[in-house]
Amino acid sequence: MADKRDPNNPDDSQRFQAILESAARVICARGYDGASMQEIAEACGITKAGLYHHIETKEKLLLAIMNYGMDLFEDQVIAKVIDIADPVERLKACMVKNIKLVTSGSSKEVTIILHEHNTLTGHAGKQINARKKKYVRFLESSIDEAIRRGQIRRVDSTLAAFAFLGSVLWTYKWFRQDGVLSEEQVASGMVDLFFRGLMPVRQ
Amino acid sequence: MADKRDPNNPDDSQRFQAILESAARVICARGYDGASMQEIAEACGITKAGLYHHIETKEKLLLAIMNYGMDLFEDQVIAKVIDIADPVERLKACMVKNIKLVTSGSSKEVTIILHEHNTLTGHAGKQINARKKKYVRFLESSIDEAIRRGQIRRVDSTLAAFAFLGSVLWTYKWFRQDGVLSEEQVASGMVDLFFRGLMPVRQ
Repeated sequence: MADKRDPNNPDDSQRFQAILESAARVICARGYDGASMQEIAEACGITKAGLYHHIETKEKLLLAIMNYGMDLFEDQVIAKVIDIADPVERLKACMVKNIKLVTSGSSKEVTIILHEHNTLTGHAGKQINARKKKYVRFLESSIDEAIRRGQIRRVDSTLAAFAFLGSVLWTYKWFRQDGVLSEEQVASGMVDLFFRGLMPVRQ
Repeated sequence: MADKRDPNNPDDSQRFQAILESAARVICARGYDGASMQEIAEACGITKAGLYHHIETKEKLLLAIMNYGMDLFEDQVIAKVIDIADPVERLKACMVKNIKLVTSGSSKEVTIILHEHNTLTGHAGKQINARKKKYVRFLESSIDEAIRRGQIRRVDSTLAAFAFLGSVLWTYKWFRQDGVLSEEQVASGMVDLFFRGLMPVRQ
């Protein structure tokens, strides 16, 4: 375990979750390197020693935040679409749910996964990368399934998976709640562009 | 001016450029907050006082690196495609050149523009954002031109511009020189996906 909490104690588990959420807000605003353990402890309303009681190192804190973000992502995106039998409908629903998870900006843990993509190294980095790769494999296999069923043309499914991810995940860089495009417009517009492409209507 | 060099002195200008390139390598590897002025000075082969002779603050150094990156981008991408009369051909060439600039990884200044998208604030942040917005406007007006000419179907050109940018710029997060896809495959594949979409061949 990366932390010292007792997973069988619900109080401990809830308190730890609250710490991760507060820490994520600080790291999201200041960047991982810019945020000190002192600042994070203050945002959590505990002492620095208290913070170190819950988690041994800043790196383990980042890993715990990213795992929490991946849990949220899997709950709110993958689990909601995995049982859709039609692979194109599955991919479309997945794109909409993933865009909304990013544009809502409510899950700072998810933004941290996107932004701090190179911060964790060694075993911790491998652990998060394995969870990200599982998502890429899910997209690739859904795309391959759609090709086999003749629903989409033959494309390289790895490349198509990364084009899908580019449309979806780049939104964390540019989307603003008070901008000209709503979450709904971005979600439906990206689905339309990705799945129908830019061909003239009359062709 | 953000720095103290004499632009009329070519030696000064070349030395400053070398400083920006060395500083960009350090910031790219360690992150802006993680990289100290001491480390940056060492990488440049000068003292910290020497570094401060060239540039007043770390923030001004980051701004100078980003402006240098935007110059490179405009030279290597925009200037090469702006005279292409056909808007679809202009956009396709632009996508290929921009992907290659990112995937080659040779311009750390460009990677820094992509990664440190929220680091600069105030006037410095506005200056870089204005240069980025100019690129978005260029894409939007080319897309609108292609729609008017009946070359592509009617889409929201802002959304299409950000879908274009997602495909192109997200590559800095996932592309590896030793990965399964070559730069060439990514460039031609993203052009194909973006411009033809995922429609079945027989439709």
